[in-house]
Amino acid sequence: MRRIHVIGIGAGDPDQLTLQAVKALRDTEVFFLLDKGEVKADLTRLRRDMLDAHVPEGTYRVVEARDPERDRSAGGAAYSPAVGDWRSARADVYERLIAEELGEDGTGAFLVWGDPALYDSTLAVLEEVLRRGAVAFAYDVVPGISSVSALVARHRTGLNRVGRPVQITTGRRLAEGFPEGVDDVVVMLDAHQAFRRYAGQDGEGAEDLDIYWGAYIGTPDEILVSGPLAEAAPRIERLRAEARERKGWIMDTYLLRRRTPEQ
Amino acid sequence: MRRIHVIGIGAGDPDQLTLQAVKALRDTEVFFLLDKGEVKADLTRLRRDMLDAHVPEGTYRVVEARDPERDRSAGGAAYSPAVGDWRSARADVYERLIAEELGEDGTGAFLVWGDPALYDSTLAVLEEVLRRGAVAFAYDVVPGISSVSALVARHRTGLNRVGRPVQITTGRRLAEGFPEGVDDVVVMLDAHQAFRRYAGQDGEGAEDLDIYWGAYIGTPDEILVSGPLAEAAPRIERLRAEARERKGWIMDTYLLRRRTPEQ
Ligand SMILES: C[S@@+](CC[C@H](N)C(=O)[O-])C[C@H]1O[C@@H](n2cnc3c(N)ncnc32)[C@H](O)[C@@H]1O
Ligand SMILES: C[S@@+](CC[C@H](N)C(=O)[O-])C[C@H]1O[C@@H](n2cnc3c(N)ncnc32)[C@H](O)[C@@H]1O
Repeated sequence: MRRIHVIGIGAGDPDQLTLQAVKALRDTEVFFLLDKGEVKADLTRLRRDMLDAHVPEGTYRVVEARDPERDRSAGGAAYSPAVGDWRSARADVYERLIAEELGEDGTGAFLVWGDPALYDSTLAVLEEVLRRGAVAFAYDVVPGISSVSALVARHRTGLNRVGRPVQITTGRRLAEGFPEGVDDVVVMLDAHQAFRRYAGQDGEGAEDLDIYWGAYIGTPDEILVSGPLAEAAPRIERLRAEARERKGWIMDTYLLRRRTPEQ
Repeated sequence: MRRIHVIGIGAGDPDQLTLQAVKALRDTEVFFLLDKGEVKADLTRLRRDMLDAHVPEGTYRVVEARDPERDRSAGGAAYSPAVGDWRSARADVYERLIAEELGEDGTGAFLVWGDPALYDSTLAVLEEVLRRGAVAFAYDVVPGISSVSALVARHRTGLNRVGRPVQITTGRRLAEGFPEGVDDVVVMLDAHQAFRRYAGQDGEGAEDLDIYWGAYIGTPDEILVSGPLAEAAPRIERLRAEARERKGWIMDTYLLRRRTPEQ
């Protein structure tokens, strides 16, 4: 039976690998590295460096493939169907990789950024491949340090306050309104700086929010900003634009926290 | 200047330690192990085993102390003030440990279960100690694999669905009602199996919920149950009661997921 490890590798700092992840790396014969385009070349590099650092040379093989791009142009209401098509295109690629590159009893691995549980489709794609039934395999998941954990660790704060909830959501959702029933919200996948909506002096900006923001967390390019949202927002906008210009891509995440009496 | 590492050690499996955590352990002279009572003796044991496994003998010292108990009897509305008192009692203990057990340039560490960012008060207590100003120190935080990440990895599922939010909350909150605006909810600190409220055949139980439950995740005692909530709930109740009886304590976490069209 073929075996697959889905390994969370942390969100930027190679030392965020767990001992369990290192063991899984060493147990792997074929690594599938899926490249999502030029801007992610740096991230493929980091994965290769991890293998160099932790797995004896000659014990493994790397197979690179192009991960089908998501049709982001569809936007709005078309978002979900586009995701469906994309997942099925990815399932084609994954199925082929597993069937052709892995022997009957081979062990392969997908190295997933951060924690495979957060805004990552590897598990859904593997389930889709299994559902199709053309290739059989067993798989396990090695949890990783997410960019969310890394963000708040760098800011030395918690995700939630005592006995209170925290929500993790996307920039797209935050742009539609501040989530109900929570005062602590982590935002990922925000290409449009949705926090700006809550940073103004007027109306909506009356919110008493603090922000804990980080870009390229855990990497040598890391940038951190925190403070009252109204003051921090313009600074983040500027730093973000500069960094994006300089590196050609950006990954950022933030926690919005509503100041509440007491805590 | 005294230095403190707040180290996330994962939620049960010693291999959930990150390489960064191992480096921080090796950089530490004095470990502060705070015991919260007999039921947690197993957890103190696990910490000691980690030190034995990763830090050369003779390079460190362990200081054990009793962590003041939270007054849980207060309950309900008194919850927050009780937390405040408790935090201040803990600050007394931490302040004394740091001032008395650590030399002027010493490095100490607190080993935090799971990820220090989730339902843990170590960071808040250290901030309180700094605020008091009686002892100065610098500190950093090493993120850890939370029981939340461990739970979903074991169930090989994600926390969120494509483009959708996830909320992390407490059993106490869930008992008050299902959170607004989310279909994926992780519940921690649930001593009363609040999920039962949503498992009935009638009224509220009409919810189309699946549960992914885990107890003692990552340890040899791990128990996992998943499935439609209505069917899984009685099984979880039984297994939970048996395990609690057998071991004398239990730690469990679960994800409630509302079945939605499409995904
Ligand atoms: C497709 S999601 C993958 C998340 C990943 N599975 C995790 O656990 O962090 C990509 C988003 O994660 C966040 N992200 C990932 N790595 C990051 C980093 N090093 N610094 C800041 N944000 C990061 C950003 O919000 C980015 O838009
Ligand atoms: C005080 S909170 C600490 C959480 C911890 N900081 C983390 O990141 O997992 C304790 C709660 O975490 C959850 N928990 C911690 N370890 C667990 C484990 N090994 N299995 C199941 N649940 C666990 C339970 O919900 C428990 O009530």
